[in-house]
Amino acid sequence: MINLKKITRPALILDEEKCRNNIRMMSHKAHSSNVLFRPHFKTHQSHEIGQWFREEGVNSITVSSLTMAKHFADNGWEDITVAFPANRREYAEIRELTNRIRLNILISSPEHLSVIKEITELDAGCFFKVNTGLNRSGTDWDDRNRFLRMIDETGKSGNLRILGFLTHSGHTYKAKSKTEILQIYSDTLFKMKSLRSLFPESEVILSVGDTPSCSIVNDFTGVDEIRPGNFVFYDLTQHRLGSCDSNQVAVAVACPVVDKNPDKQEIIIYGGGVHLSKDRLLLADGRTVFGQAVYLTETGWVYPDDEVWLKSISQEHGIISASNDFFNNIKTGDLVGIIPVHSCMTSDLLRVYHTTEGRIIDDFSPK
Amino acid sequence: MINLKKITRPALILDEEKCRNNIRMMSHKAHSSNVLFRPHFKTHQSHEIGQWFREEGVNSITVSSLTMAKHFADNGWEDITVAFPANRREYAEIRELTNRIRLNILISSPEHLSVIKEITELDAGCFFKVNTGLNRSGTDWDDRNRFLRMIDETGKSGNLRILGFLTHSGHTYKAKSKTEILQIYSDTLFKMKSLRSLFPESEVILSVGDTPSCSIVNDFTGVDEIRPGNFVFYDLTQHRLGSCDSNQVAVAVACPVVDKNPDKQEIIIYGGGVHLSKDRLLLADGRTVFGQAVYLTETGWVYPDDEVWLKSISQEHGIISASNDFFNNIKTGDLVGIIPVHSCMTSDLLRVYHTTEGRIIDDFSPK
Repeated sequence: MINLKKITRPALILDEEKCRNNIRMMSHKAHSSNVLFRPHFKTHQSHEIGQWFREEGVNSITVSSLTMAKHFADNGWEDITVAFPANRREYAEIRELTNRIRLNILISSPEHLSVIKEITELDAGCFFKVNTGLNRSGTDWDDRNRFLRMIDETGKSGNLRILGFLTHSGHTYKAKSKTEILQIYSDTLFKMKSLRSLFPESEVILSVGDTPSCSIVNDFTGVDEIRPGNFVFYDLTQHRLGSCDSNQVAVAVACPVVDKNPDKQEIIIYGGGVHLSKDRLLLADGRTVFGQAVYLTETGWVYPDDEVWLKSISQEHGIISASNDFFNNIKTGDLVGIIPVHSCMTSDLLRVYHTTEGRIIDDFSPK
Repeated sequence: MINLKKITRPALILDEEKCRNNIRMMSHKAHSSNVLFRPHFKTHQSHEIGQWFREEGVNSITVSSLTMAKHFADNGWEDITVAFPANRREYAEIRELTNRIRLNILISSPEHLSVIKEITELDAGCFFKVNTGLNRSGTDWDDRNRFLRMIDETGKSGNLRILGFLTHSGHTYKAKSKTEILQIYSDTLFKMKSLRSLFPESEVILSVGDTPSCSIVNDFTGVDEIRPGNFVFYDLTQHRLGSCDSNQVAVAVACPVVDKNPDKQEIIIYGGGVHLSKDRLLLADGRTVFGQAVYLTETGWVYPDDEVWLKSISQEHGIISASNDFFNNIKTGDLVGIIPVHSCMTSDLLRVYHTTEGRIIDDFSPK
């Protein structure tokens, strides 16, 4: 039970059961496809929630920064991929970790490789980052010459162990339907599989892992590991994409109601960009929203019959455009729940979980 | 001098001279109009930067949360307005502060007043929040009956001292020109002045204070106090609005370059939404950007000849769409500077200042 009386400011509520179900579901999916489950921990960043993954047999993880890698290494995780192009300026931090754990780094291009010479001399694994369509970083999947250059130079350069190829097909976040997500996944699979021929005589790991694909695809045959992260909590974006059901979303932000405007049927909450982030969602009808409002209870939250949206936010304020019922049911001084647009950003801002079991989890990665 | 070699991850650089000039400029403007300067401290949230205000004669401040009010009360500030509708759930925190300092709270509507009965019994000052056009919270400026109800009920209810009326004309942020900002300010002034007649026999404070208005208006005659906050650093939004010159912007985020994409002339940086926030700016040509790239030096930063934009960000990555020159001048492993879209959000995320004088300021308000 959540002690709602103790919540005086915006607070992140975590439904432990939903979260554990999400972990179990994804772990089973990976297992039944016989691929390694290397979840991305940037979403929750917590030792205790990491432990819930351990209980499902997870030993290998992904993070997005050296700070997070150190945070989890300090908690006994010994096989960590930093899914971000190795940053030459963090050489000392990388070296320190390679002395303690199996650290895997990312090489995103031949030019990148040429400037991280010191790092390539460390005892680490490496993945080549593949651009399969997100166009953020990495080498284009069909540029075989550039991959061959990287493979050749890595072989010559030092101690790095080549593990394989890694991609993040984050363009699934812009998909308009589940079918489109499946199409992006099958396109990604085709592109990644083509890279195996660069290593005709040895094993190579193909690593994929955006949450929309991993949620919708059931059979991961063809790749070797999946690295989804957001699924641990899901959020409004994933729900609207079709990656999950609304009742799989495991986090909501409890926000005090500070005033109501009967003329406009608006509810003014203590909860803004410093709590929820400024991530936004474009609804099908053209409206931009910053979260979905729900009724908070001592055991979690309940969706109102009509969808109710957080229509605008500033640094500390949020304005809910309420339905009749929601407006009448909520009083000033109450708490409302806000399902965040992007749970990774929201948890990074709030850094403390109030669980539906009544516990506080505050072992979040430092900044 | 900034020790750039020590910066390995995204870090907030503060140009102390520009910042002190901004403080001095606004303080002089308030002084020459004979109005109280009650700056909003939510932008910097730092004791040391607060001290720079003290050196300009500032004794009264504004904050946006009780946490910040406590942070500054602990540092000797004794006259603090919390510019956010008083939150009934934080009664204990409010009471604690009223025992130590002159705390001013906000009442935003008669309905709000009716549910904060306990708070009205505390020894505090209060402002009535006026909606002059932002439509976020407060009572509409021309709804005299509602103001009269609030005045009457406050008089009856307890110990609150009525100080006056407070508004935030944040709709200046959507203005398309300086002229439009001036129009909004003069409209605000007209609306606020009309409220004086509700107190025909006593003094009443009219408090205004968005940074765009306070930056562009020179004569504040007619109001009694100004509460700008963002001007302490300014940012890309203010620069594009015309509130400041580009060389008045006092913060930039130092971001390591992790790779470059010659085909697209893009620079991939370590610096994303968890450092800069997801606040965005719409350029006149329809592009949405997340920051402006500058050359970082040991003494600050220099704007490139062509404008260079941070075109997209995810949690930790940023992608700069570079000009020819910028692309050629920046190498992987270098640092680039990013002028943030919204300095309040960025400082709240990074929480540590690296000053151009070579010092670290880390006395930021807790969350």
